[in-house]
Amino acid sequence: MTADATRARQRLFVRDPITADSEIELAPEQSHYLEHVMRLKPGTPVKIFNGLDGEWLGTISELRKKKGSVTAERQLRAQGNEVGPTLVFAPIKKQRLDFLIEKAVELGAQSLQPVITQHGITDKVRLDRLQAQVIEAAEQCERLTVPEVCEPVRLLDWVANLPENHHLLFCDETGSGSPIGEVLSQLLAKGAGSFIDNTNVVNHAIVIGPEGGFSADELERIRKQPFATPVSLGPRILRAETAAIAALTVFQDRIGDWSHRPVARD
Amino acid sequence: MTADATRARQRLFVRDPITADSEIELAPEQSHYLEHVMRLKPGTPVKIFNGLDGEWLGTISELRKKKGSVTAERQLRAQGNEVGPTLVFAPIKKQRLDFLIEKAVELGAQSLQPVITQHGITDKVRLDRLQAQVIEAAEQCERLTVPEVCEPVRLLDWVANLPENHHLLFCDETGSGSPIGEVLSQLLAKGAGSFIDNTNVVNHAIVIGPEGGFSADELERIRKQPFATPVSLGPRILRAETAAIAALTVFQDRIGDWSHRPVARD
Repeated sequence: MTADATRARQRLFVRDPITADSEIELAPEQSHYLEHVMRLKPGTPVKIFNGLDGEWLGTISELRKKKGSVTAERQLRAQGNEVGPTLVFAPIKKQRLDFLIEKAVELGAQSLQPVITQHGITDKVRLDRLQAQVIEAAEQCERLTVPEVCEPVRLLDWVANLPENHHLLFCDETGSGSPIGEVLSQLLAKGAGSFIDNTNVVNHAIVIGPEGGFSADELERIRKQPFATPVSLGPRILRAETAAIAALTVFQDRIGDWSHRPVARD
Repeated sequence: MTADATRARQRLFVRDPITADSEIELAPEQSHYLEHVMRLKPGTPVKIFNGLDGEWLGTISELRKKKGSVTAERQLRAQGNEVGPTLVFAPIKKQRLDFLIEKAVELGAQSLQPVITQHGITDKVRLDRLQAQVIEAAEQCERLTVPEVCEPVRLLDWVANLPENHHLLFCDETGSGSPIGEVLSQLLAKGAGSFIDNTNVVNHAIVIGPEGGFSADELERIRKQPFATPVSLGPRILRAETAAIAALTVFQDRIGDWSHRPVARD
């Protein structure tokens, strides 16, 4: 009997390699959630992905006492090339950070880099929490990858240790930059958008300051980078999480993957 | 003595006309907040705006027992032309709706139209709550206007009663539309973006469906409108509030006011 993909309501990120007929182990929390919150039974069709082998249809083969597994059946989507920008952000208050993280995943950020800034309100980031949120958002928004969550570092250390092929778009609320859309379209015209064709010429990083803005020292050091471009995000004062969401959106619209259509929905 | 604008940390929306030396009454909740939460005293400089007379510097002249007033001193910014799109959205769960409203204000929506849809999860909208959120967000993001919050109506009634000079951009998650950025740039090339120059040729409305999507009936009726264009928002499945924020962002970037620089910050 073949599972019906239209009945697979749950989409699960798994750690194991996925091949036809392989038995994929679920994490204890995942199993608990499926059994006790969603009240699913063995035999239920689900979709699984691991960031490497595309999306597969499978059925739950075991689900009992925080132990669960899925038997992979057939591939629904091949692993595409999901290359998005890195989002570099200063930690903000909990509820707003939760929102920022969820939206960054939906908007295709490839990795999330928390940075400690001179005017930031907090240096604390719970990476395990971020990691769980990122997985949940990726499951929800039909991504085939889960963004990498990096260890927090000082902004200036991060800038100083940047690999050569990185380009920084830093959202400068003092208004020194040109509008972000114009900057990105000019970059695209120069060929810097070609990373979306898998040539990986340039890795873009979008840098968002804390609510208090970058310090004068930070601004000066970032501006000195050969591959940093200040951008502005319009005439209004945006909160940090709005700036992050808006910058990622314009990025995807202007030089990212928004020329692609959505995956078919059941 | 002249008040120091750089010391005016609070920005307040008021209802009265503002002219030099006029005494502007504050709302009871505003007065309470300033006295008991912010612990301000008479004599403190504040910024005020009413959506008509620009932004003014003033000083608190009275603040006691939920009664407060501000004496206007001098105009800091003239009332500009803040014409943004209407955001038409189906109510969603509380925390996500709060976020959507705040971000819509930051991103320059001119009015907010809640609509009741066939697949929507709720018909309930607390307009007084929305109104308060909209004012708070406008104060925060340096806008000179407060978006209008409209009474909820059925989506199909709203579509049927649309004035002639409206253009609908409806975010169609079935993927029937072209990418939103392309659509907007084409509209701009045809002159439909000229509303930002105060000619008001076209009023744009961005229509976002509920989490469950538009019904087949709704989609068919919207598509029949002569001035409705379906747009897509990239390959991932966006939550309703993400779709609203992203669509507003691309609108402002492509044909809205993001070519303007931010207001100077102190």
